[in-house]
Amino acid sequence: MREVAVIGVGMTKFGKFIGTSLKDLGRAACLAAIKDAGISAREIQVGYCGNAVGGVMTGQTMVLGQLVMRELGITGIPITNIENACSSGSTAFREGWIAVASGMYDVALVVGVEKLYASDTGKTVQALAGASDVEVEGSLGLIMPGVWAMRAKKHMEKYGTTLEQLAKVSVKNHKNGCLNPNSQYQKECTIEEVHKARMICDPLTVLHCSPIGDGAAAAVLCSKDKALRYTSKPVYVAASVLTTGTYDLLRDITENGLETSAAKQAYEFAGIAPEDISLAEVHDCFTIAEFLRCESLGLVPKGEYGRWIDEGWTEIDGKLPVNPSGGLLAKGHPVGATGVAQVAEVVWHLRGEAGKRQVKNAQTGLTHCSGGAIMGDTAACTVNILIV
Amino acid sequence: MREVAVIGVGMTKFGKFIGTSLKDLGRAACLAAIKDAGISAREIQVGYCGNAVGGVMTGQTMVLGQLVMRELGITGIPITNIENACSSGSTAFREGWIAVASGMYDVALVVGVEKLYASDTGKTVQALAGASDVEVEGSLGLIMPGVWAMRAKKHMEKYGTTLEQLAKVSVKNHKNGCLNPNSQYQKECTIEEVHKARMICDPLTVLHCSPIGDGAAAAVLCSKDKALRYTSKPVYVAASVLTTGTYDLLRDITENGLETSAAKQAYEFAGIAPEDISLAEVHDCFTIAEFLRCESLGLVPKGEYGRWIDEGWTEIDGKLPVNPSGGLLAKGHPVGATGVAQVAEVVWHLRGEAGKRQVKNAQTGLTHCSGGAIMGDTAACTVNILIV
Repeated sequence: MREVAVIGVGMTKFGKFIGTSLKDLGRAACLAAIKDAGISAREIQVGYCGNAVGGVMTGQTMVLGQLVMRELGITGIPITNIENACSSGSTAFREGWIAVASGMYDVALVVGVEKLYASDTGKTVQALAGASDVEVEGSLGLIMPGVWAMRAKKHMEKYGTTLEQLAKVSVKNHKNGCLNPNSQYQKECTIEEVHKARMICDPLTVLHCSPIGDGAAAAVLCSKDKALRYTSKPVYVAASVLTTGTYDLLRDITENGLETSAAKQAYEFAGIAPEDISLAEVHDCFTIAEFLRCESLGLVPKGEYGRWIDEGWTEIDGKLPVNPSGGLLAKGHPVGATGVAQVAEVVWHLRGEAGKRQVKNAQTGLTHCSGGAIMGDTAACTVNILIV
Repeated sequence: MREVAVIGVGMTKFGKFIGTSLKDLGRAACLAAIKDAGISAREIQVGYCGNAVGGVMTGQTMVLGQLVMRELGITGIPITNIENACSSGSTAFREGWIAVASGMYDVALVVGVEKLYASDTGKTVQALAGASDVEVEGSLGLIMPGVWAMRAKKHMEKYGTTLEQLAKVSVKNHKNGCLNPNSQYQKECTIEEVHKARMICDPLTVLHCSPIGDGAAAAVLCSKDKALRYTSKPVYVAASVLTTGTYDLLRDITENGLETSAAKQAYEFAGIAPEDISLAEVHDCFTIAEFLRCESLGLVPKGEYGRWIDEGWTEIDGKLPVNPSGGLLAKGHPVGATGVAQVAEVVWHLRGEAGKRQVKNAQTGLTHCSGGAIMGDTAACTVNILIV
């Protein structure tokens, strides 16, 4: 396996883009990444497109990656469409990494794109519920807010985590989102506002939940030996791990063996320890998720995320900045785009180009996504480690 | 890149399976392939699942591969869901091949699965129309039967192809299907019956068209150095090509530069000539498609498929057996399953295990799928070459 660099990244603003198609969003992100890489579209040798629910939401059931890349004149190359629930974009990134690391291709373009906004929110909820086992969990009505509310309650009971601490994740990530021009929300909120927001599933109000939105992100991957032709600031893929397993809901819902396993593999592959991570973009689909992710990924000791958030250690200027982009909670979560957007965010920090939200001396970044069914062994978890 | 062997294949019968889920079908195919490989499910290191319209047809928008493989206790490994329209299954096969050829994994499980049957056929037609650019072609109402009818007319005009010759493809493939216990249709038809069948789009009657159906197929891939641990009859992947391009509809609709390019790459990679092919499973979604595929793949000279079919040269005992399985026309076409089922068919022939439809002395087999949009450069074409 060869070493692989990310030589260009780009994304659209996340938000509600009525009248803007999946193709439009995908094209904009690809163009930005290609421009950032200083490469010509003609030099792209292989393409991967991550999308989760485009078929149900827009009727474009197939060949989305081909449609997006055709908009840039990219044709005559292998293009593959990837779906892995909330890990769709990050899995597409990983397939691009394998394609280049294997030596088969020198330059890969990866795009993640999604449109979740619908005039009928029920349509979006139903589409996203298809990340569960629809025959089993679907028929139980066990959808994500319910699951995460149970996890929040259990974490509070087991570790003494408070609602204030949970709310502080939303406050932090909304504050970070204000520093990110691509963020869906650019408005700070207070603990009081989080508490008083519309209840979704006790104890989670709407400000504990990531929003519905549209968007796209893209990355250009290149073999290490050719990367310096294009950029003076290559960022290397030190590890890109995908695994499948359980969310442990039938065991201890504050644990996540799947994420622990993926992170362990990633640290080993990269030859680093969790302490070496300068910043992490983790899958904060709900405030409690940031707690559980950071703990299961080994970034924060079990049960201690509440203390870390109280101490401000996961703020941009803390010892482990978590979700400086604003995370899913503020930046938004157009499912297929999320994993690639996380990579873009880390690349900007490692290059020192993250503007007002720049993490100082960032050398090593981690991205994490998990998606998929709730009870069975059917979730997809991705962990990428990027270094300079 | 390492050499890769197919060490096991399996499939369900194709047909209408009301009350049987995608999981049920996928599990049955995977079990058959794993049993055929003589391997334990625990030895599978990576999984790929091809599916095109599961989200729209069944509501299972995401993580299908994880759900299918969990049914066999396969967890804790990377599993990725792949969509590339009618090439979904064959693209999944190719990703499995890359994963093993790269040296990252020794054993991969690939499954393709689809359910197209619905009580409301309009639902299926709409789902399949999502293989086009829905914003452009979709709004024109330009769906597949219309496109292929135009191609048939043009081929007839340009090369003097007759309706009888087109009908003979259906007659041949339905005859072959009678020899295949997994075929959706096991009933011969006559030229007269093809002519008199219900008209779909002039000149194509329903017997010129592949049917709607459900089914699954699977394959186990293994590095060459380990293959002989499991099987005494390894079949090697000599080439696995995916490319994207146009169906040339705006130029000459009897040409297909995309398929010609994919086939050329495959012959070169495998180091063989089209004349070396012992049998071909090509994407006969309509009778005229078998003409155009064989000609664009370089298996038959341009404009001469009519003569070849008249001479019986593409019968099972002819000089180039085409679609001995019954092809899409008779065996059926559950989209995501098709590409993997083609691989299974070729493997059985190369091992001498194809029963009554066995092609004698089969040494080299080709599989071909094309899918996706109609006019733009957004089709996905796969060509695999398998050898013993």
